[in-house]
Amino acid sequence: MPKEELRQTPRTKLVRNHRRAEYDREVVNDIIDATPMCYMSYIIDGRPYLTPTFQWRDGDTIYWHGSSASRFLRQIVGKEVCMVVTLFDGLVLARSAFHHSANYRSVMLFGEATQISDEDKDEHLKKFVDNLIPGRWETLRPMTDKEVKATTVFSMPIDEGSAKIRTGPPVDDDEDYELPIWAGVLPMKQVLEAPEPDPKNLAGLEVPEHVRNFELGKHD
Amino acid sequence: MPKEELRQTPRTKLVRNHRRAEYDREVVNDIIDATPMCYMSYIIDGRPYLTPTFQWRDGDTIYWHGSSASRFLRQIVGKEVCMVVTLFDGLVLARSAFHHSANYRSVMLFGEATQISDEDKDEHLKKFVDNLIPGRWETLRPMTDKEVKATTVFSMPIDEGSAKIRTGPPVDDDEDYELPIWAGVLPMKQVLEAPEPDPKNLAGLEVPEHVRNFELGKHD
Repeated sequence: MPKEELRQTPRTKLVRNHRRAEYDREVVNDIIDATPMCYMSYIIDGRPYLTPTFQWRDGDTIYWHGSSASRFLRQIVGKEVCMVVTLFDGLVLARSAFHHSANYRSVMLFGEATQISDEDKDEHLKKFVDNLIPGRWETLRPMTDKEVKATTVFSMPIDEGSAKIRTGPPVDDDEDYELPIWAGVLPMKQVLEAPEPDPKNLAGLEVPEHVRNFELGKHD
Repeated sequence: MPKEELRQTPRTKLVRNHRRAEYDREVVNDIIDATPMCYMSYIIDGRPYLTPTFQWRDGDTIYWHGSSASRFLRQIVGKEVCMVVTLFDGLVLARSAFHHSANYRSVMLFGEATQISDEDKDEHLKKFVDNLIPGRWETLRPMTDKEVKATTVFSMPIDEGSAKIRTGPPVDDDEDYELPIWAGVLPMKQVLEAPEPDPKNLAGLEVPEHVRNFELGKHD
């Protein structure tokens, strides 16, 4: 019988220096690797901002990128940011409104945004594409210097933050289990549909294997 | 033939005082109403934070809620927050790494978090449930005063922010269209799977219509 489980790793316990932290890091990495989508919180002129973007992990470091012209990216150089990666896994329907909940896996990371130098950007952008859509990079027209310059890549170490996971059915008040109210979980997930070819593709081009077999999440 | 379209409504143009703003507000409302999931950015002690939560819209006001014990909610009373609602609609695969992109619908809102009074909370929480899962509220064990007290509800007016939408195939450099590289879109969406009944449900309880027919997004 499934049990409700709410796990939260303690903050600032992500460095690899004792057994508990090793476990936390595995939980954190699994969530980060399950989806490329993330959200970044940062401060400009004392006001909170939020930008959805894509992240990729390489060992103990997390990366994100964007246009060098972006206000978001120009403002956060060397500044503290907060990144959240969340997968909503379901709606939890309880016998009372109060105990309704959501099943999810979520990681919150804190760190300073370090800008990657021009010389190293190429390598990281290749890793981003390889991580997101393995097999695609080598099929593409190579990046130009101008394009590399127009792209900013940031990193921060995965060493401060926490993971939070909720799974399982609702947890109701004891006496409410006797009520004839349907309770349970509505599972939710992000899925991919059939690829839509660009109408401008050259005639006869088939959907390549790396697109046909594409799955969201890290591929190692 | 589908065309790439990137639309961005200008910030601080969401108040209903001229024709263009009316249009912007419709775009903004459609995105907000398409999913209950949102992300909130806020500042505690000068550091940026980020919390995923659920939102619901009632006319020109957006609401969110949480445990009265939550640090997040206690810290943001009267403070400025930034809320983002985003739907990732697909990965856009171009002929060069640089022109890879994502299709999405996203709203960013700014405002001060106003705490809803104890007397008004009931009504708003009912609207939250009615909006999320129409038909469920009246089947539930009624909320107790203690539960209402343990829940904090916030609101902010939908009057400062912007919407950004990308749709359609990749937009490549002119000369790259001659390359034999497959380009297109991998459509993505959040779907619901079959309801999982709580193993503690009373015997013989059928999945109610409001669960069987459930769809993500606002139901008017």
